[in-house]
Amino acid sequence: MNEFQQRSAELNDLLCVMNILTWDARTQMPGGGSTARAQQLATLSALARERLTDPAFEAAARAAQQEAADDLQGRAAAQALDAVGAMRRVPEELTRELTLLKSEAQDAWATAKANNDFGAFAPALTRMVELNRQLADALGYEDHPYDALLNTYEPGLTVKTLLPLFERLRAHHLPLLRAIQAKQEPRTDFLTRFYPADAQKAFSLAAARRFGYDTGRGRLDQSAHPFEISFTRQDVRITTRFQEHFLPGALFGTLHETGHAMYEQGVDPAISRTVLTSDLLGLYAVGGASYGTHESQSRLWENRIGRSAAYWKLHYPELQAAFPEPLGDVDEQSFVRAVNRVATSLIRVEADELTYDLHIMLRVDLEMRLISGELSVQDLPAAWNARIREDLGLEVPDDAHGVLQDIHWSAGMFGSFPTYTIGNVMASQFFEAARQAIPELHAQLGRGEYAPLLGWLTENVYRHGRAYTPHELLVRTTGEGLNPQPYLDYLTEKYTGLYGLERQEHPAAHKENA
Amino acid sequence: MNEFQQRSAELNDLLCVMNILTWDARTQMPGGGSTARAQQLATLSALARERLTDPAFEAAARAAQQEAADDLQGRAAAQALDAVGAMRRVPEELTRELTLLKSEAQDAWATAKANNDFGAFAPALTRMVELNRQLADALGYEDHPYDALLNTYEPGLTVKTLLPLFERLRAHHLPLLRAIQAKQEPRTDFLTRFYPADAQKAFSLAAARRFGYDTGRGRLDQSAHPFEISFTRQDVRITTRFQEHFLPGALFGTLHETGHAMYEQGVDPAISRTVLTSDLLGLYAVGGASYGTHESQSRLWENRIGRSAAYWKLHYPELQAAFPEPLGDVDEQSFVRAVNRVATSLIRVEADELTYDLHIMLRVDLEMRLISGELSVQDLPAAWNARIREDLGLEVPDDAHGVLQDIHWSAGMFGSFPTYTIGNVMASQFFEAARQAIPELHAQLGRGEYAPLLGWLTENVYRHGRAYTPHELLVRTTGEGLNPQPYLDYLTEKYTGLYGLERQEHPAAHKENA
Repeated sequence: MNEFQQRSAELNDLLCVMNILTWDARTQMPGGGSTARAQQLATLSALARERLTDPAFEAAARAAQQEAADDLQGRAAAQALDAVGAMRRVPEELTRELTLLKSEAQDAWATAKANNDFGAFAPALTRMVELNRQLADALGYEDHPYDALLNTYEPGLTVKTLLPLFERLRAHHLPLLRAIQAKQEPRTDFLTRFYPADAQKAFSLAAARRFGYDTGRGRLDQSAHPFEISFTRQDVRITTRFQEHFLPGALFGTLHETGHAMYEQGVDPAISRTVLTSDLLGLYAVGGASYGTHESQSRLWENRIGRSAAYWKLHYPELQAAFPEPLGDVDEQSFVRAVNRVATSLIRVEADELTYDLHIMLRVDLEMRLISGELSVQDLPAAWNARIREDLGLEVPDDAHGVLQDIHWSAGMFGSFPTYTIGNVMASQFFEAARQAIPELHAQLGRGEYAPLLGWLTENVYRHGRAYTPHELLVRTTGEGLNPQPYLDYLTEKYTGLYGLERQEHPAAHKENA
Repeated sequence: MNEFQQRSAELNDLLCVMNILTWDARTQMPGGGSTARAQQLATLSALARERLTDPAFEAAARAAQQEAADDLQGRAAAQALDAVGAMRRVPEELTRELTLLKSEAQDAWATAKANNDFGAFAPALTRMVELNRQLADALGYEDHPYDALLNTYEPGLTVKTLLPLFERLRAHHLPLLRAIQAKQEPRTDFLTRFYPADAQKAFSLAAARRFGYDTGRGRLDQSAHPFEISFTRQDVRITTRFQEHFLPGALFGTLHETGHAMYEQGVDPAISRTVLTSDLLGLYAVGGASYGTHESQSRLWENRIGRSAAYWKLHYPELQAAFPEPLGDVDEQSFVRAVNRVATSLIRVEADELTYDLHIMLRVDLEMRLISGELSVQDLPAAWNARIREDLGLEVPDDAHGVLQDIHWSAGMFGSFPTYTIGNVMASQFFEAARQAIPELHAQLGRGEYAPLLGWLTENVYRHGRAYTPHELLVRTTGEGLNPQPYLDYLTEKYTGLYGLERQEHPAAHKENA
C-alpha cells in the first residue's frame, strides 16, 4: 500500500465505523444511549474530516495521481482531490452551523408535524434554505445553485438534464393516470388482514436469499424505518418493519433493501477500503456510484422483478402456504393486481410506482424554487397544496398530510429527492441492457433463476463501486446517458395489461416514439 | 471544558466506539465481517494511541494538573500522565510485535487445544513469555517483573502483597476441601434436565432487573462467552449463553454479568467521558477501578446474593413456576445445595467457589515462574499436572483438559489471573462493610430489597469510577487494605452449614483469628 491507499483505507474504516454506530443506534441501542452515541458520532466525524483535510492526505493523493499505477487508482485520487477541494471551499463555520441546525430543525419539524403547525417549523426551514443556498454558493455551480446540491447526491447531474426529463415523465404519467382512474379499482382488502410478523420475516428473508443476498455477509433486523447500510462488502445489513395488518410493507420493503444490499455486496474486493467505496463529502461508507444508481437497484429488484406477474406466478403458492389464513381465498392474479394498484394519495411513501414520480417532481420543483429564492417558505404550503390538487386531484386536509410529511428538508437534504425518480429511470435502462445481453433472461426469471441477472448487474454495475459516475455507468452499459424511454415503455406496458387500457387512452405515453 | 477535558472526552469516545465494535462482533456480526472488523479496530486503536501520545495531550494534562480545579481533575490528569509515560516507555516495535503475536498465538492455541497438541502452541507461548518479560522490563518494577504486568490489571498490587494472601487462602481452602470431600455429595442430576432457553432468558433478565440493572441503559444478548461491556454509563450491555441442559450456566452467568453492569451503570455522570472511565493503557472504556474490583462486584451479586439460601428462600417458587417440568420434584434446599456443590474438577470455568481459587493460584504460580524465567514453557505441562494432582487429587488426562484450557496466555494476559481471586476477597470486604453500614441489610435481602445494598455500593464504590485505586477504595470503605479474613469466614460459615461440618474438621480456617 502506498501512503494514499493507507490513508484512504483508514478513512474508509472510520466511515464504516460510523455506519456501524448508526446501525446499532437504529436497531439495538437502549434509549438511554442516545446522547453518548451522538457524541461518539460527532467525534468520529470530526476525526474523519480532520484526516480528509490533512495536507498530507492531499499530498499523498497528488503523488498517487502522478504514479497512477492503474485507472482505478487515478480515479480514486481524482475523487479524493475533488472531495478535499469541496470540503475546503465550504467554510467551517457553515458546516458547524448546518450540523447544529439539522438537529434543531428535525426537532422543530417533528413537533410541527405532530401538532400540524407549519408555523412552528417555518423559521428553522427558512434558515435551512438560507444555509443550503450558502452551501451551494460555496460548492460552486455553472447554471443553477440547485446543481451544486444535486451533485452531492448525483454526481454530474444538472437541472439542465433533469427538467426536460421530468417534463417527459409528467407528460406521460398524467394521461396514463387519468386513463387508469377511469377503470375499475382492483380489490386490496385482503392486504390488511392479519399476517403474523414471524411468518413475514421468514418469507422476506427467504425471498432476499433467493435473489442472491448473502446472509453470510449480512443480516435482516427490524427498525422503525427500513434501511440498508454497509461496513465494507463483507458486512451489509438490511432492516425492515413488520406491520401485522399490512403485508406489502415488509414484503416489498425487504426486496427493496435487498437490491441496495446486493449492490454493496457486489463491489469488487479490490476496491474495498478505498475512496471508491467512500462518500468522502457525505462522510458515509458506501459502494454505490450515487443515490440514484443505488435506488435504481433497489427498485429494479423490488418493482421490475418483485412486483412482476412472472415472479408471483412462480412464488405465489409459497406465499399462500406461508399465510394460509389471509390468502387462502385470494388468487394469484388478484394478488398481483392488488400490489400493483395505482391510486392517488397524499403521502409519498404510500404511493404506487406511477404516482410516486409525481410526488417527487412536486418536491423537486418546490425545493428548486426555494433555493433560487423564487419561492418563500411562507408561500410553500399553498404552493404544495395547489400542485397536489393539479396533479392528483386531491385536497390536502392539513400540513401534516402535506408539506410536513417528509423529514428531508429538516435534515438539510435539498437535492436528494430527484434521485428517487432518477433511480426508476435508470432501473429500466439497466434492465433493458441486461435483457439484451442475456437472451434467456425472461425464461430464467420465469424459472426463478436470478443468478444470471445478478451476475450481469454485478459485472456491469456493482463491482465498480464509485469508480464511475452514474452517466459513465449508463454509457458503458447502454451506450447512452439518462433516457426515460425504457421506463415509460415499462410503465405503459405494465398498466395497459393490468388495467386493460386501450392505446388511445393514453396517447402521451409514446409521443417521443412517434 | 478545558483542552484536557476535551481531548479526554474524544479519547473516551474512541474507546467506547471500540467497545461497540467488539460487542457487535461477538453478538451480531455475520461471519464474513471478521477481517474488516479487525482492520477497523486496528485503525481505531492506532488513532487512540496517536491521540494519547500526542504531545498536545500531555501538555493539556500538565496544565490541568496545575489548575487542578478539584481533586477529580487532578486525579484524572495524574492518571493520564502515568499512561502517557507508560506508553512512551514501551517501544513501538514491542507493541506492534505483541499485537501480531496475540492473533498468531490465539490461532496456534485454538489449534493446539483442538488437537490436544501442546507442542503446536509451545513456540508461540515461548515468544509470548519473552515479549511479556520485555514488556515488564519496559514498564518497570521494583521487586518482581510480574509486578509490572499485574499492575496493568490491578493498579498498586504487588507480588509482595499477593503471595502471603494466597498462602492464607491455600492454607484455608485445602483443609476445608478435604473436610467437604469426606461428606456426602448433594444430588445435582436435576440441573441437567431440559430448561427451555426462552424461559431461562425471561427469568435471568427479570432477576437482573430485580437486582437493579437498568435495561433502559442496557440489554441482554447471547454470545459464545458471556461478557459485560459499556459505552458510557448510559449504555451497558451484558450477554449470556443459554444451555438448554444446564440451568446454572445462564442463571448465575447473568447475575455475574449483572454485577459488572451495575458497577458501570453506577458511575457518576460527572466522570462520564473522562480519563476516570478510561483504561488508557488497555485502550478500553471501563468505569471500574480495576479487574479485581470489577470482579468483586460480579461475584458479590452472583455468589454472596445469588447463591445464598436467603435468595432462594424468596425466589425459588418463581424459578419452579418458570420451570415446572424439571424442578417440580425438587425442593428449595436441594436446589441450594446443588448450586453450591463443591467438587474438584479439571476445568477452571466449571469450578465451584472454593476450588476456583485453587485453579487461580496454580496459574499465578506458574505464570510468575514463566515470567521470572524459573520455569520453561517446555516444563509447563508437567508442572501443571503435578499441581493439579497435589491440590485437587486429579490426574490430567490430556493438555486440552489441563494447560491448554484457558485463552489468557495466548492473548498475552499475563498478570490477569490473580484478579479473579482478588475479586472474591474484595467482594467479602465490601459486603462486610455494607453490612456494618446498613443494620437492616440482612432483613432487606430476605425481603428481596436490593436497592439499599446497590445504593451503598454505588455511593462507596461504583460512582467513583477509576478515580481511586482498589487499595484506596478498600481503605475508604473498610478502613484497611486487602484482607482475606471476611472471605475466609464467609466460605467457612457457608460450607459448614451446607455440608454439616464440625469446626475441628477444618482447623486451618480460623488460625489467623486464633
